[in-house]
Amino acid sequence: MAEYVVARNIYSEDRFNADYEKIYRQRKTLLNHVTDYFRCNSRRARSAALSLLPIIGWMKIYRVKEWLLSDIVSGVSTGLVAVLQGLAYCLLASLPPWYGLFSAFFPVVIYFFLGTSRHISVGPFPVLCLMIGSVVTRIVPDDAPPMNITGFEGLTQDQQRVLVASSISFLAGIMQLAMGIFQVGFVVMYLSDTLVSGFTTAAAVHILVSQLKFVLGLTVPGISGPLALIKTLEVIFNKIGSTNVCDVVISLVIMVVVFIVKELNDRFKSKLPVPIPIEVIMTVIACGVSYAFDFKTKYGIGVVGVIPKGYEAPVAPNLEIFQETAVDAFPMAIVGFAVAFSVAKVYSVKHDYIIDGNQELIAFGVSNIFGASFKSFAASTALSRSAVQESTGGKTQVAGLLSAIIVMVVTVAIGFLLEPLPKSVLGAVVIVNLKGMLMQVREVPYLWRRDKPDCVVWVGTCVASILLGLDLGLGVGLGIELISVVLRTQFPRCSVLANIKGTDIYKDKKDYLDTFEPEGMKIFRIPAPLFFANIDFFRNKLVEALGFNPLRVLRKRNKALRVIRRMLKKGELTCTPKGYLNMCPEPYKEVDGEDSVEELDLPTDLKDLPIQVDWRGELPVNVNVPPVDLHSLVLDFAAVSFLDVSALKGLKTALKELIRIEVEVYIVACDPYILEKLHSCGFFDDEVTPSIFFLTLHDAMLNILERHPESNQCKTNLSKIMTTATVHHPNSSIRSRDRNGMEPETRF
Amino acid sequence: MAEYVVARNIYSEDRFNADYEKIYRQRKTLLNHVTDYFRCNSRRARSAALSLLPIIGWMKIYRVKEWLLSDIVSGVSTGLVAVLQGLAYCLLASLPPWYGLFSAFFPVVIYFFLGTSRHISVGPFPVLCLMIGSVVTRIVPDDAPPMNITGFEGLTQDQQRVLVASSISFLAGIMQLAMGIFQVGFVVMYLSDTLVSGFTTAAAVHILVSQLKFVLGLTVPGISGPLALIKTLEVIFNKIGSTNVCDVVISLVIMVVVFIVKELNDRFKSKLPVPIPIEVIMTVIACGVSYAFDFKTKYGIGVVGVIPKGYEAPVAPNLEIFQETAVDAFPMAIVGFAVAFSVAKVYSVKHDYIIDGNQELIAFGVSNIFGASFKSFAASTALSRSAVQESTGGKTQVAGLLSAIIVMVVTVAIGFLLEPLPKSVLGAVVIVNLKGMLMQVREVPYLWRRDKPDCVVWVGTCVASILLGLDLGLGVGLGIELISVVLRTQFPRCSVLANIKGTDIYKDKKDYLDTFEPEGMKIFRIPAPLFFANIDFFRNKLVEALGFNPLRVLRKRNKALRVIRRMLKKGELTCTPKGYLNMCPEPYKEVDGEDSVEELDLPTDLKDLPIQVDWRGELPVNVNVPPVDLHSLVLDFAAVSFLDVSALKGLKTALKELIRIEVEVYIVACDPYILEKLHSCGFFDDEVTPSIFFLTLHDAMLNILERHPESNQCKTNLSKIMTTATVHHPNSSIRSRDRNGMEPETRF
Repeated sequence: MAEYVVARNIYSEDRFNADYEKIYRQRKTLLNHVTDYFRCNSRRARSAALSLLPIIGWMKIYRVKEWLLSDIVSGVSTGLVAVLQGLAYCLLASLPPWYGLFSAFFPVVIYFFLGTSRHISVGPFPVLCLMIGSVVTRIVPDDAPPMNITGFEGLTQDQQRVLVASSISFLAGIMQLAMGIFQVGFVVMYLSDTLVSGFTTAAAVHILVSQLKFVLGLTVPGISGPLALIKTLEVIFNKIGSTNVCDVVISLVIMVVVFIVKELNDRFKSKLPVPIPIEVIMTVIACGVSYAFDFKTKYGIGVVGVIPKGYEAPVAPNLEIFQETAVDAFPMAIVGFAVAFSVAKVYSVKHDYIIDGNQELIAFGVSNIFGASFKSFAASTALSRSAVQESTGGKTQVAGLLSAIIVMVVTVAIGFLLEPLPKSVLGAVVIVNLKGMLMQVREVPYLWRRDKPDCVVWVGTCVASILLGLDLGLGVGLGIELISVVLRTQFPRCSVLANIKGTDIYKDKKDYLDTFEPEGMKIFRIPAPLFFANIDFFRNKLVEALGFNPLRVLRKRNKALRVIRRMLKKGELTCTPKGYLNMCPEPYKEVDGEDSVEELDLPTDLKDLPIQVDWRGELPVNVNVPPVDLHSLVLDFAAVSFLDVSALKGLKTALKELIRIEVEVYIVACDPYILEKLHSCGFFDDEVTPSIFFLTLHDAMLNILERHPESNQCKTNLSKIMTTATVHHPNSSIRSRDRNGMEPETRF
Repeated sequence: MAEYVVARNIYSEDRFNADYEKIYRQRKTLLNHVTDYFRCNSRRARSAALSLLPIIGWMKIYRVKEWLLSDIVSGVSTGLVAVLQGLAYCLLASLPPWYGLFSAFFPVVIYFFLGTSRHISVGPFPVLCLMIGSVVTRIVPDDAPPMNITGFEGLTQDQQRVLVASSISFLAGIMQLAMGIFQVGFVVMYLSDTLVSGFTTAAAVHILVSQLKFVLGLTVPGISGPLALIKTLEVIFNKIGSTNVCDVVISLVIMVVVFIVKELNDRFKSKLPVPIPIEVIMTVIACGVSYAFDFKTKYGIGVVGVIPKGYEAPVAPNLEIFQETAVDAFPMAIVGFAVAFSVAKVYSVKHDYIIDGNQELIAFGVSNIFGASFKSFAASTALSRSAVQESTGGKTQVAGLLSAIIVMVVTVAIGFLLEPLPKSVLGAVVIVNLKGMLMQVREVPYLWRRDKPDCVVWVGTCVASILLGLDLGLGVGLGIELISVVLRTQFPRCSVLANIKGTDIYKDKKDYLDTFEPEGMKIFRIPAPLFFANIDFFRNKLVEALGFNPLRVLRKRNKALRVIRRMLKKGELTCTPKGYLNMCPEPYKEVDGEDSVEELDLPTDLKDLPIQVDWRGELPVNVNVPPVDLHSLVLDFAAVSFLDVSALKGLKTALKELIRIEVEVYIVACDPYILEKLHSCGFFDDEVTPSIFFLTLHDAMLNILERHPESNQCKTNLSKIMTTATVHHPNSSIRSRDRNGMEPETRF
């Protein structure tokens, strides 16, 4: 077995830089980046154009023979699902069902040209629909006059609602487009998996509650704002007596059948060529039965009702609604994009192609702006529909375009066939599809065991989103998540390290028995970045580890010095070759200086003193100066990944206090960028110099042992070659004194 | 000069643990902490009682002879300032001036018993007064009927406003008390110096604008909500024609005189026994002049007016106002405490005593609850007043109590003397005192040079607080600050390290010329903690550094394997001793497997193959498999201070992909707590094992060189003793091939 054998110079950062020349690398400044970004040439222009129209890229490599058939099969299947989901999710948005068909058509067409994902099915997304619904019912309530907005005159309630939904979609689209143009797509990184999981679980609960009224056949007004969920449940329970039994029966049948067939689809995934489209089948059956037995008039069941043929004229968004809904549109823009992007990412990894976050933002932005002009509402993707598109063999967005054409056929030609469809069927289909989202609850115990802060983020986001509503809840969740990152580094587990005998390895001294810690020396490890939230904590921990407060020691020394000066002046103290002769045997009373507190914090000034004062030895006067057994402190910066200005100030103060009581401080394993920053920030002065930086702990240790040979009799052992087991340090007695003999001066 | 000489075993974490036994330390669980916290015994009960009444502690050591006189002098000076500031700051809260005197009395009395700071002067704080003012004018506007609140019937506008102010103060007090009891005082750490500086600068701007109307003698309604500042300025500019010239003249005179004398006070600080109380002097003069020349009737100047003698009966807070103002009270509770605590901290460090954050919260909470019951409003401390108390020699809160008594004397006896005081004088005094807060703007260029993110926090907080109002602005600032922490670690500067020849030191290979990087080996340093926001970034950087995408390589290999299997089955491929014999010279067309994408991600399975496949050598078929020159990858975890669940998942996936294409992965210098967490989280399985962890980079390097002797001819040089300068590695040609010879497979 090979050994670890090294012999080299002891390196401080300075010495290392002298021995090894560093290559000068010009750093790009912010300005460079900006000018680079805006530099224009034909190649760049071409690639920019290509990246703005990704369709050019994938159309060129389209393998007609192999892919077209798959795309057609997938497109038709997806189209059928899209029709059904379009109608169903529209109920979440509190709009007439056929507008959902618009949302499954217009955005898809634009995404076909601009999108970089080849597998997601663009269109209505239940969570987004619900968020739109809550704004719609806030501005145009069921049981109260609508808000005072100029564009509303002469419109029916439904038309007002459609105007609100399309305006807010337009606004969300503008926000997405702007984020895409300014290349800030990275903000979705803040929506961690944990956060999204908690958020969508809460959304599922909201969706469940919002569909209860259709399943039970009740009329419940849309309620928005904090605690809306609880208020809605209250209304439902109050009205539970007037439940339409027929609706309940239909819903239960649909739910049970769809649930079972879906489970079977899952189980026999590998054996089935395509999953059974049970939702579509059940819908068609329900439609037929409802028509045949005239459910609407016989049992008073709510049905989809008249679906006008064809599309409506485009509409301009309303600026007053923009003002009212700006705060709501932002979370919609973020959530819509984040969900679509995360689904797209999964498929892009699976099928090995590249998607571009910023281009996706542009694609969704334009899709929503275009769609909203034609009265569709904000589009994203539904996980279930994308799964259908991909699993039935969709290769490119050609499948998406075909699904849009199916939806169009329904809109312009055969929509009337869906008129007898009971709304409870749609509600039941939505509820069954929630299973996956609700099952995310199972993550909680998993997270609790693995990582408590992550668990808190999940639960916090979920509870806040359920109680406060999805938009506020998302904000609260984001706040909790950001605080969790800070909290992870706010209370770092600082530790005192010691040398593992006979090696260059340093470990927590509490963890190992056979360690070596030279007298008068401490190694303090900081296991986290230093910044405003933990710099005070770090300083307290350092004082705790040192066993004394450097500032207090410094002040006591300065006070003692003042007493000595006064005694020398009065002739009460004389210096004999054998030592000091103190004429005043009584303890000298400390005088509280009124104006000199600041002076006490200055370095002790021994220059003009005729006598020698040794702070570690006996003092000539009876002033109580705490003893300091420490001559060197090493700070292990290996895990300090950044420093902010507060930390810089705090660190410098701490270093100065130590240096002023004659403790040598060393910083080791400092990141080169941090060192550079310290230089550029004016961190160094006469007292704190760059020479305190050493490459490794062991370098600093060897340097200290050389400077303070008295602290270790077996110094030679350390700095010469030795094998692990043979060396024994005769310093156990020293160490025990070091550990217990030092009186803790103060513990903050 | 000593040398760095080490000879020891090569240590993986496993081997080190075998050689050195770790001491088993029982960790405290959350439950332990909770039970410890609630454990009760007589000693703890006594110390808890003492910490709840800090007055007992400092009263015992009160040095009557030395301290009492100082306290009296300080108390009287502070009391005079407190009277003036009480009246002036009350204008900020849009309340009748004499209520400010209540605020300078009741809270101080309670703080005397409960507070741990001996030097701060408790009472009205301008920023807090302004925040109260904005709520007061929102609920009881000047020019519109007040909000519909049941307690308001039969009250004058001023009484309604006082009720609002005292209710919100009561609520803020409850919040502070609760935070103190639950020991969450640490939340003020999130208010970094930078944030507080930006926030108070914005507050100074607000205060300046709010005082303009008094200085100009205009009547301007109180405006609240976002953009209130701009709207107020608009109103003032519209009314500028009706300015009261007399008011302007008085204000200018006061401002100039006070400003100059304050500068002189500052300059001759050391020579003056106490600073000249110029504000008090000018107020008294203004009072006299105004009375003598009857300013009120002659020039139409607004004066303080009738000050009722004595105190008013206590009042219960209004619960409806609680509901309306809960969101506003929280930032008040935080800001009031944070400012007082930061001032207290400065003095506690200066005078070397301990203050307790949670006890301070309790003290302010009870002070505010008690004060609000007597119609005072939320108390904190004003920097200027505390400076007076400390600089005139205040030693303990006895000075504070005396200042309260002075205020009481004014209230119950000589308040009528202040009745002719012009409000413009108060406004002028407030404005002059803003100098310090406004001068904080000078921090901006300083911060910009030192630390860009900190500068963004400052500017963001300040601008948001100016435009959106102080409460919303504080929230926005806090958000920016938290994001800045995440941003600092979100785009870490990952680097590829190389060995500095002849040493055990590893540095960025781009930074040094004379480095050594064995063929087929890469060292990748992660200079930041890994968590949800940067795990994808890290993986992309890793792929970039590797020069190939491991997942893609794995899939290509599996595809090649499938082709080989098929060819072997068909007999198109035979194995001869000299090599493979491929009967099908044409490149074999890759077939897109419809159902087998997942299979491609599994480890390559070579078990049942009759022939040997060497991925690094020539392949028997014409399938394009990217070459991988890498046999080992070392990840330097020294700066990874924490990992969250997302990072755990991402890291494991990345490791698996590498291991499956036969790249050995090593992780070095991992924090022991992270290693423990990985174990407890089920990070390890058959593929990813704990044996990949090594103590240091050099340990891993030596281990790799031993396993792959072919990658370095001069291996012996490294693992034997050598001095720095003498060794030369004949591997420059190898390195250059390593750098340039590897085709970049893909760059994400």
